[in-house]
This record gives sequence, C-alpha cells and structure tokens, in this order.
Amino acid sequence: MTDDRIPVSREGERPIGVFDSGVGGLTVVKELFGQLPGENIIYFGDTARVPYGIKSDRTVVKFSLQNSRFLAQFKIKLLIVACNTASAVGLDILRKEFPFPVLGVIEPGARAALRLAKNKRIGVIGTEATVSSRAYVKLIEGINPSARIFSQACSLFVPLVEEGWLEGEITAAVVRKYLSSLKKKSIDSLILGCTHYPLLKPLLQKEMEGIVLIDSAREVVAEAKKVLGDRGMLGAGNRTPYRRYYVSDMPARFVRVGKMFLGEDITPVEQVEIEKY
Amino acid sequence: MTDDRIPVSREGERPIGVFDSGVGGLTVVKELFGQLPGENIIYFGDTARVPYGIKSDRTVVKFSLQNSRFLAQFKIKLLIVACNTASAVGLDILRKEFPFPVLGVIEPGARAALRLAKNKRIGVIGTEATVSSRAYVKLIEGINPSARIFSQACSLFVPLVEEGWLEGEITAAVVRKYLSSLKKKSIDSLILGCTHYPLLKPLLQKEMEGIVLIDSAREVVAEAKKVLGDRGMLGAGNRTPYRRYYVSDMPARFVRVGKMFLGEDITPVEQVEIEKY
Repeated sequence: MTDDRIPVSREGERPIGVFDSGVGGLTVVKELFGQLPGENIIYFGDTARVPYGIKSDRTVVKFSLQNSRFLAQFKIKLLIVACNTASAVGLDILRKEFPFPVLGVIEPGARAALRLAKNKRIGVIGTEATVSSRAYVKLIEGINPSARIFSQACSLFVPLVEEGWLEGEITAAVVRKYLSSLKKKSIDSLILGCTHYPLLKPLLQKEMEGIVLIDSAREVVAEAKKVLGDRGMLGAGNRTPYRRYYVSDMPARFVRVGKMFLGEDITPVEQVEIEKY
Repeated sequence: MTDDRIPVSREGERPIGVFDSGVGGLTVVKELFGQLPGENIIYFGDTARVPYGIKSDRTVVKFSLQNSRFLAQFKIKLLIVACNTASAVGLDILRKEFPFPVLGVIEPGARAALRLAKNKRIGVIGTEATVSSRAYVKLIEGINPSARIFSQACSLFVPLVEEGWLEGEITAAVVRKYLSSLKKKSIDSLILGCTHYPLLKPLLQKEMEGIVLIDSAREVVAEAKKVLGDRGMLGAGNRTPYRRYYVSDMPARFVRVGKMFLGEDITPVEQVEIEKY
C-alpha cells in the first residue's frame, strides 16, 4: 500500500479518512456524499475484529491506532472515527498521535441534542456497550449539568438493519418495545447513538412523533465541514472525487450490506492485513 | 494457570473440556449436566474474539488451537468443540495436535438427522456463516448422497436469544418468517445448526409441528458418553463434580446471558489472556 496512486497537489485534494469497526460508518460516508460532495474519501471497516463494543478499552485503543496509521498513509487531511466505542475511548490518544484533526461521533451528537432540546430532556439509544459506557451521559452532563438524559440499549437494531429489515411489522414491533419507556419521559430530542440507526429513521420518527432525532453521522459531517472550512481545506474543487474502501476480512458481506447503507454500489473494496499497522 | 488445583487420581476424574466462541456452547454444558452429571467440566468462551463465523479459516484454526492448548493444561480427557464454525474448519488439525478425542457439533447432528429423517429430507438452520460454509450439506451428502438438504440462515435468532426474548409475539413472528420456505419443502427433520437455537425449541417446535428437531448439543454429548464409555473413562464416580468457566474478555455479560443458557448461576468465571496460548 503506497500513496503514489493518489495525486496530492493541493491541501483540499487530500482525502478525508473514516474508520469504523465494520459497515455502520458508511452512514457517515453517505453524509459526506450529501454535505461535502467534492471530497475524496478513504474508508476502513475493521470487519475482521468487529464488534468493538464488547472489547476492553485497551484493545479498542490498540485497534484504533492501527486503523488510523493505515489511513494516515493516504495523507488524509481529517479523520472521522465513525465508531461510537472508539469515539468514546480513543479520541484523546489519536489526537496526540496524529497531526490531522480527529473527530468522533459522540461529541457532535451530544452538542446538537443540547442545542435542539428545549427542555434539555434528552433520550439516547445505542448498543448495550455504548449505553453502559455512559459516554453520552457524561459528555452532556459535563456541558450542561441541568440536562436530564434517559438511555435505552436497543440490541436488536443492528442485526435488524444488517438483515435488511428496515420496515415491516416485526421491526416496527421491536421499535415500539424498546422505545416505550423513553416515550413516557417527555424527551425533546433523541440521539441515535449508533451508526446503524439512521437507516431506521422513518420507523423511529413515526414512533417518536414530534421529537427531534439527532443523527450523529449528519452532525459529525457538519463539524468536519466547519473544521475544513476554517482551515481553507475544503475539497470542493475535486471534479471527480475518488472513494476507496478497505476492510480487514472478506469483502463480500461488506459489499452486500454496505450497498443498503450507501444506496449505491461500493467500489473498489480491498482487503488489508490491519494487524501489521 | 496450573492444574495443581485439580485433583487427578483416576482417568474418569479428568475433566471434559468444552470451548465455544462465546456463550452459546453452554447449551452443551447443560446437556453434560443432564446426560453425564458426574463429569468435571472446564469451559472456555472466547468472548474477546466472538464471533468466529465472519473470520477466515486460518484465523479460526489459530484461535481453536489456542483455546485447545489452554484447555489441555487441565489434563482434559475429551474435548468438545461447541462452535459450529470451529467444528467445520478445525477438527482435523486439533485431532492431529492433541492426544485426547476431539468431538465437534456438526457430525453428531448430521448423523442424527440421517437416522431420524424417514424420507431423508433434512432442513438445516444456522447463522449466515454456518449456512454459507455448507458444512452440514457436504457432510450429509458425503454419508448419504440421496439425502435432500434445505438450508436457511436465521441471522436474528442469536441476538433474540442473547436479548432473552425466547418467547412472545416478536420472536414468534421472526421464527415464522424464517421458517416459511422450509415448511414448504416437506422436511422430516430440522437440524438446529447453532448452539443458541435450543433455547428457541418451544417456538420452533410449535412452528414445525410433527418435524423432528435435531439438537446438536444433545447429540454431541450422547457421542461423548459413548466415546468415554468405550474407553472406560466415564466420570460417574465423581460425587461432587467441579465446573469451571473461563472467558477471554469481561465476564459480566457472559455471567448474565449464560445464566439463561444453564438455568443456574455460572460460577466460578475467570478471565484469561488467550493470545498467550
């Protein structure tokens, strides 16, 4: 892997790097397509070591460093950590280690929730690991101690999304079951604290009528746009931006499930030995 | 980790070793409690590296060797590989490497299905990885080429079981959805090709009325009983058999979810660094 295939003539042409433990971070890539269509993108999905949520902090930090070193080779101008677990435990270390700005998905989502929730009653849904880490709770309470946060783990959402069951009676029933307790808490906004959840937005919004859904993927990309704009490093001039996808194991499933996330074919995808980095 | 805490006075007193990629292999332990209540048991659940199904054969073989070396320290008299993926790719290598008999979950299940299916029309359900490996299909067709095998991946069953939703409308609807195509194939028997699935037996049997459900955990323990009996190595004389559980990451979730599998508290559980083995 060398970067000689990638022309780097101006700062703006350098790619944005995105990594996730698997396929979920493609919701961030889709937001990049929408909000920053001129950007070159390098994505890494750690499909050989997914999921991160059940692993110890030390292991997640080690994996995050390897993923970032792999992406750094491409002379990325900004790194988005699209994995909630890695965002919760690894950002400080990555920021010390690398010269480029590093954004995670938790802080932008938390700030958006505080901005949009009138009565500061905020719901958070995520995987069991994200919810029990209390990452959103600690961050939001750190910014505004008067905020009230109500969390709910929704363990079946990821498998439902990966199975492609984005609508229909079964998924609607699962959504109803998980959200019933949050509905009673009079929350103003609900943070989708997992990169898979934006695919369930229609069902979630129907169940949580009148409540603002906070999509961390959208928020982190808005933040990336601001950071790059401030530094004069936007890639708007790239007429035919490239997108490259790398995974650590067997691309077949990534390509199939990922297509649902992106709404288009994922190509090119290449497998890499991430343990070497 | 040494074996000096474990008294070994006679062959029968040596423990049976069981490993799985996670918590699912506890269905095998439960069968051991039932069919071989006098046996000492050492269980290893590779909770830090779960799931195996999405990993390459080479990686799964490496993990299986490490897990077996860990268990071999306890002077086990027999090893049960309670993981479908490891059973499909690792048995031959483990049998060459270790002096004790090594049993997997696939072959006993396949043989039972052939024995019990009158018209040799056999259904197999499992994870996406197990189904796409075609391990059951190849083995059954190898034994009886006239058998017809119909497979169905049921990706949501494991998360449903781990969430504890063993009954109720949602799980019943998921079962109906996955099994609808198999119901039209006039199968005689249905292999539960995943160690989690025995917990869904009541719902599965209701949906597949009159069809024999083949529980691989039960079949592999019946095989273990035969192998040990033939060698005069049954542990029936152990008055107070010990059971010890080891995991590779954070025991909390293993203890909570595992209790549902065993129907009793799991104790003692200890965390080990499996990469060292």
